[in-house]
Amino acid sequence: MDFSYSEKTVKFQEKLILFMEEHVYPSEKIFEEQLNTQHSRWAQVPPIMEELKQKAKEAGLWNLFLPESKYGAGLSNQEYAPLCEIMGRSLIGPEVFNCNAPDTGNMEVLVRYGTEEQKEKWLKPLLAGEIRSCFSMTEPDAASSDATNIEASIVRDGDEYVVNGRKWWSSGAGDPRCKISIVMGKTNPDGPKYEQQSMILVPLDAPGVKIERLLSVFGYDHAPHGHAEITFDNVRVPAANMIWAEGKGFAIAQGRLGPGRIHHCMRLIGAAERALEEMCRRVQSRQPFGKPLASQGVVREWIADSRIEIEQARLLTLKAAYMMDTVGNKEAKAEIAMIKVTAPNMALRVIDRAIQAFGAAGVSEDFTLAAQWANARTLRLADGPDEVHRNQIASLELKKYKEPEEAKDGITPVKAR
Amino acid sequence: MDFSYSEKTVKFQEKLILFMEEHVYPSEKIFEEQLNTQHSRWAQVPPIMEELKQKAKEAGLWNLFLPESKYGAGLSNQEYAPLCEIMGRSLIGPEVFNCNAPDTGNMEVLVRYGTEEQKEKWLKPLLAGEIRSCFSMTEPDAASSDATNIEASIVRDGDEYVVNGRKWWSSGAGDPRCKISIVMGKTNPDGPKYEQQSMILVPLDAPGVKIERLLSVFGYDHAPHGHAEITFDNVRVPAANMIWAEGKGFAIAQGRLGPGRIHHCMRLIGAAERALEEMCRRVQSRQPFGKPLASQGVVREWIADSRIEIEQARLLTLKAAYMMDTVGNKEAKAEIAMIKVTAPNMALRVIDRAIQAFGAAGVSEDFTLAAQWANARTLRLADGPDEVHRNQIASLELKKYKEPEEAKDGITPVKAR
Amino acid sequence: MDFSYSEKTVKFQEKLILFMEEHVYPSEKIFEEQLNTQHSRWAQVPPIMEELKQKAKEAGLWNLFLPESKYGAGLSNQEYAPLCEIMGRSLIGPEVFNCNAPDTGNMEVLVRYGTEEQKEKWLKPLLAGEIRSCFSMTEPDAASSDATNIEASIVRDGDEYVVNGRKWWSSGAGDPRCKISIVMGKTNPDGPKYEQQSMILVPLDAPGVKIERLLSVFGYDHAPHGHAEITFDNVRVPAANMIWAEGKGFAIAQGRLGPGRIHHCMRLIGAAERALEEMCRRVQSRQPFGKPLASQGVVREWIADSRIEIEQARLLTLKAAYMMDTVGNKEAKAEIAMIKVTAPNMALRVIDRAIQAFGAAGVSEDFTLAAQWANARTLRLADGPDEVHRNQIASLELKKYKEPEEAKDGITPVKAR
Amino acid sequence: MDFSYSEKTVKFQEKLILFMEEHVYPSEKIFEEQLNTQHSRWAQVPPIMEELKQKAKEAGLWNLFLPESKYGAGLSNQEYAPLCEIMGRSLIGPEVFNCNAPDTGNMEVLVRYGTEEQKEKWLKPLLAGEIRSCFSMTEPDAASSDATNIEASIVRDGDEYVVNGRKWWSSGAGDPRCKISIVMGKTNPDGPKYEQQSMILVPLDAPGVKIERLLSVFGYDHAPHGHAEITFDNVRVPAANMIWAEGKGFAIAQGRLGPGRIHHCMRLIGAAERALEEMCRRVQSRQPFGKPLASQGVVREWIADSRIEIEQARLLTLKAAYMMDTVGNKEAKAEIAMIKVTAPNMALRVIDRAIQAFGAAGVSEDFTLAAQWANARTLRLADGPDEVHRNQIASLELKKYKEPEEAKDGITPVKAR
Repeated sequence: MDFSYSEKTVKFQEKLILFMEEHVYPSEKIFEEQLNTQHSRWAQVPPIMEELKQKAKEAGLWNLFLPESKYGAGLSNQEYAPLCEIMGRSLIGPEVFNCNAPDTGNMEVLVRYGTEEQKEKWLKPLLAGEIRSCFSMTEPDAASSDATNIEASIVRDGDEYVVNGRKWWSSGAGDPRCKISIVMGKTNPDGPKYEQQSMILVPLDAPGVKIERLLSVFGYDHAPHGHAEITFDNVRVPAANMIWAEGKGFAIAQGRLGPGRIHHCMRLIGAAERALEEMCRRVQSRQPFGKPLASQGVVREWIADSRIEIEQARLLTLKAAYMMDTVGNKEAKAEIAMIKVTAPNMALRVIDRAIQAFGAAGVSEDFTLAAQWANARTLRLADGPDEVHRNQIASLELKKYKEPEEAKDGITPVKAR
Repeated sequence: MDFSYSEKTVKFQEKLILFMEEHVYPSEKIFEEQLNTQHSRWAQVPPIMEELKQKAKEAGLWNLFLPESKYGAGLSNQEYAPLCEIMGRSLIGPEVFNCNAPDTGNMEVLVRYGTEEQKEKWLKPLLAGEIRSCFSMTEPDAASSDATNIEASIVRDGDEYVVNGRKWWSSGAGDPRCKISIVMGKTNPDGPKYEQQSMILVPLDAPGVKIERLLSVFGYDHAPHGHAEITFDNVRVPAANMIWAEGKGFAIAQGRLGPGRIHHCMRLIGAAERALEEMCRRVQSRQPFGKPLASQGVVREWIADSRIEIEQARLLTLKAAYMMDTVGNKEAKAEIAMIKVTAPNMALRVIDRAIQAFGAAGVSEDFTLAAQWANARTLRLADGPDEVHRNQIASLELKKYKEPEEAKDGITPVKAR
Repeated sequence: MDFSYSEKTVKFQEKLILFMEEHVYPSEKIFEEQLNTQHSRWAQVPPIMEELKQKAKEAGLWNLFLPESKYGAGLSNQEYAPLCEIMGRSLIGPEVFNCNAPDTGNMEVLVRYGTEEQKEKWLKPLLAGEIRSCFSMTEPDAASSDATNIEASIVRDGDEYVVNGRKWWSSGAGDPRCKISIVMGKTNPDGPKYEQQSMILVPLDAPGVKIERLLSVFGYDHAPHGHAEITFDNVRVPAANMIWAEGKGFAIAQGRLGPGRIHHCMRLIGAAERALEEMCRRVQSRQPFGKPLASQGVVREWIADSRIEIEQARLLTLKAAYMMDTVGNKEAKAEIAMIKVTAPNMALRVIDRAIQAFGAAGVSEDFTLAAQWANARTLRLADGPDEVHRNQIASLELKKYKEPEEAKDGITPVKAR
Repeated sequence: MDFSYSEKTVKFQEKLILFMEEHVYPSEKIFEEQLNTQHSRWAQVPPIMEELKQKAKEAGLWNLFLPESKYGAGLSNQEYAPLCEIMGRSLIGPEVFNCNAPDTGNMEVLVRYGTEEQKEKWLKPLLAGEIRSCFSMTEPDAASSDATNIEASIVRDGDEYVVNGRKWWSSGAGDPRCKISIVMGKTNPDGPKYEQQSMILVPLDAPGVKIERLLSVFGYDHAPHGHAEITFDNVRVPAANMIWAEGKGFAIAQGRLGPGRIHHCMRLIGAAERALEEMCRRVQSRQPFGKPLASQGVVREWIADSRIEIEQARLLTLKAAYMMDTVGNKEAKAEIAMIKVTAPNMALRVIDRAIQAFGAAGVSEDFTLAAQWANARTLRLADGPDEVHRNQIASLELKKYKEPEEAKDGITPVKAR
């Protein structure tokens, strides 16, 4: 047992921390200003973003995700975790390093399941940060916590597939650079429950694709990224756009969501860490009743509890990453579910305390706290609500005592009594 | 002891509930659309609002607040509470009935402390709903939980006062109809701690008044109302604009905040009640795993806990109102502090559960949940953060056992052991 | 709406508070010492108890429960609530006034459903405090949250019934004065689900009744009261011992549990109120780091939150009592379920904070905190676990939106939107 | 970074798990019965304990604590942690392996600071499990969270020291085998604040030592161990009994408490792990409403949250142990404080959920849940209340941003932003 980071990780940490301080944090307000001074916040991506991306590429801080792949930086999930955390300290951070959702998840899908042609056409420009992508799974008319409810249809017609359906929360589709969506739909509605669905690549400029509106999250529009409601009306794409094969939608989703979930958690830890830091600085500088807020016992409990909760969530995330690296994503499913529940709730508590310490300033745009809170709140829903994950954790736990001879103890390192 | 509402209250409740259903709820989306189709969300007040106000006036649902005043509807705080709750179910509700913050608080100040001239000039059009007002107390550079930190200056110069300072969270100042601000500042910085401050009426069109920007709350701009940062640069107003007298700023604040706080709490109870209702409807209509969400034990606990928490907060709010009516705002200070802590936290929990039950839809603009949540969150800070109120409650409690002969048991009807 | 207590209540409150201070609190340690100096804690009831009962009778503080009955003091539930609360401040309090569980519940059963003969034989001495009783419902082998699981059998045989079964948590059966048990069992195992069960009076000295052991609650034996595991082995009782009629077991349980639950809640509020008072006194007298604990912000939050939570639970309990008085126990079922969930959880939080404020002394026998905590903890299980009550509250709430034409709005005074 | 246990640890785990199942769990009831069948629970130690100790010795499961010492098993703190956890699953477990508090802490003091003579006389028989010891620090009249308040006096008089004072919570002093106490008192009341105190060895049979009473913890007497209140009345001991040197009391306490705290936390994790296991088994076997409790969503959330919380607390404890091993107890102080807060609170939540799942059985002596809960509750107070530790954590956190050039980042592996 060894809790220290590898030398490689430490070097990347140092570089990233420096890069964030020199380039990313000072650009947060510029990014927002550039958005606001356009005629529409959706008109174009703030130029500062492309400048930052260029700098990150030059600094060798590019595509750090993608374990076990020739396309990435050769980092394991466990090595990437502390880096992803640092990027997550800023809402504009992950994209700077081409490590933002949903592009990372989509790139992973293409790396694992894409044909050479698909990789050439879509993976390459995504890895280069030239285009953006979205993921169209959730539907407004289906209870989204149960993916078998999905109703979009993908029907083979000669050399093409015809896609019909209404999707929402296709995040990233607001971005003018967004060129491609991975769409989940049913190719075989009468097949076995988990083989009805497929994933297919649909270019956003294909006839019949229409972005109906961009949803807000709490009051944030998240421009230029955006969360789109999209209709697919008899959209025709080449049969070669099918990913892996018909009926593999669920299998791909399983593969896609594990790393995606852990990345979200890492970023949330970074967001919480930054909120705690800002709270610590703030309470030492404000003196409402003649002494610093930092001397108030209640505020000190907020700080202590935040530190305790962050530490625990980080360790669990690192362990989940370690298990993904050593025993595989499937065997790590309990740990992944656990961090998926823990990290957002932890971040919400920490950030909320920081907001309270900041007073009214905390809910405004002057700090990133409120925006980070709103983001963390959606992550109690995105990729499955807390309740679905808790239910899965309980199933795995109960199983240990049901069929002792078979029970897989993927959770505790000690065999249960 | 009698927990039933008066006949008068019940009649108003029935009328209000009907009015909300017929006119207010259906106008929520129209209001937002009218805002969004203007060239700027700050350009003008959506016309639907003035239509609704006209209807409310005609229905006799106007200025229901203002206990013990010839200007109001002759309702006690306790009688008004259940009505204010109903208005609070919609974020656009209170203004429809001319019962919105900060205008109600400002009107109360003018009723209690205003000169006849001030009443004629400002109270009358406020009561008629013709103009709007704001309240400029909080400052960006002062820790706002301690009002003695306020630094704006109000200096007498002949027949005029000269006002200088920077304020923020002057809510309502974004509204084109907003004509007047009650500004708190120091007239006597060397005087006794609670007599340094005064409140003065400053027209927003006076030279030197500048709205620097409009702050957002969790991404919401709250147009056309808005939360302004305002600078006052050598603003000259007639000496007759002073409210009550120099040095009375704190005394007025005390009088203003009691009713203001309880109104906020009543509205929050309405917001929570609506969230619970919407959650109940939603979970009976969505079937993610082949059975209604309403049959899930976890969801049922959310519903039960929400009902329990709402009931308790309502009863405490009603008791606070009852005490304000029977023993006065000052004697009711413990109860007012208690509901000021309880109501926002209760509403946040209830609404958050509803958001979770709604899934991603819950964080979007398709329902009022996220916006109500953001509003409730600010009320853990506005009019004093939770911590300041808890501290006051503790002081009152501890005092009971410190000087038993003098201790005022304003909190429990039973004399403590 | 009126939050003041009736003159009658106030007079009883004053007398009771005085009596508790003069007689009950000083007897707590004596009671325990008398128990400990006997050869066995089960040998006899500490003599101080009978002395206190005599004094309470003389002071007219006897049998204050029993609304609408010629046997009681003529107090409504709402009037009794604040008195029961005061008694509950001491664990030996309720019996002093002959208002302790399970005797009050058993007396209510006999008042409502007993024959004249049963009243003469059992109710009279119970009302006089001459004998004690127990209630044998829960069984070790049946999941007790679902009473239809109960397996004890009551079989008619000529002029007698034969009772067989194993019961536990028959509280009070350890008391040497305990003469009678109300036993629930099945007379008609094949009948309709809620008509299989009956309640019958079984004298504890009947052949075949055996107290197997006395269970502890956390480490407390609760001598001389005790919680017994009892076996009934072919116990024969006269047919006249049947209460009401065969098959009425559930109906009686419903009638019995409503008042019983609210009494428990009232006592818990008293226990919490006393814990808060003791915490306030303690933290003003202890100075661990050179200043009173009372000046620590964290401790002050405990005090404030405790006050807020007690107030709310008390108001909800009073409202439930008021509804039982005005619309009946059945119509008040939502409110009764709500306080049954809220009061124990509130008391546990308040007492736990007091324990923490007392340090190690708080977990010991030097104060009543730990014992009161253990008592409150069992009340999250006794008379139905929290989860069963929450489930019922949710059902009632959901029903409002399911069949709007029929839904009974027993919960909110305002018709839901 | 490596989350796997060493081969040595895994071997010990396997042996320990087997030993617990074969010998310890089946002895729990026997231990209690042997206690109860004596004329007094304090008469003698149940014989089963010495039998178990003999078996543990033979199995090589003896004195596994004591890192970096020739007296122990050569395990690091991190290697010992998973073993201590297993022992903690049973309340009688730790002593079986001679790894129980306060003896382990006392042995560590003697190993580190004892003279050869002291080791010969006291350490040897303690290591052999022949005698037991207690630790007398807390005083009834001093607020125990601030050790500088301690008032016992230790005065040099020729070749002797004279000890006077009143101590309580001297745990273990009830045991007839308890021969020695380490007593903390003031040798130099006018010296610098942290040099006034010393620790000295006082044999319990020295004239003037009197065990006044044995305190209970939530009703538990914890016989034969016990928590004593002891008076020291002019007790004379040889000067050679002083540990280390006069004025070193605080320094020793610091050294003693680090490992002691982490051992407590490890045991609590074991207690929580067992509670979760028992809950999982129970809910699969009980069917209150026609289906297993395990299928109830609410119960499943209890299980999932328990698993998540245990995992996180275990990882943080292991990290604290790892830091103690790699950078030393002093550098690990933040982590030690964090687990000291987290582990008891986690265990209390997990055990409380299990109690609720067990129903009334859960609060009784039929399962170890209630006793384990009471034990965990005292650990929110013992060795410093939560609040003192949280305060220290906050200080360490705030310091990072106060003096950036000096701040020691002992907490996060990543340099803060």
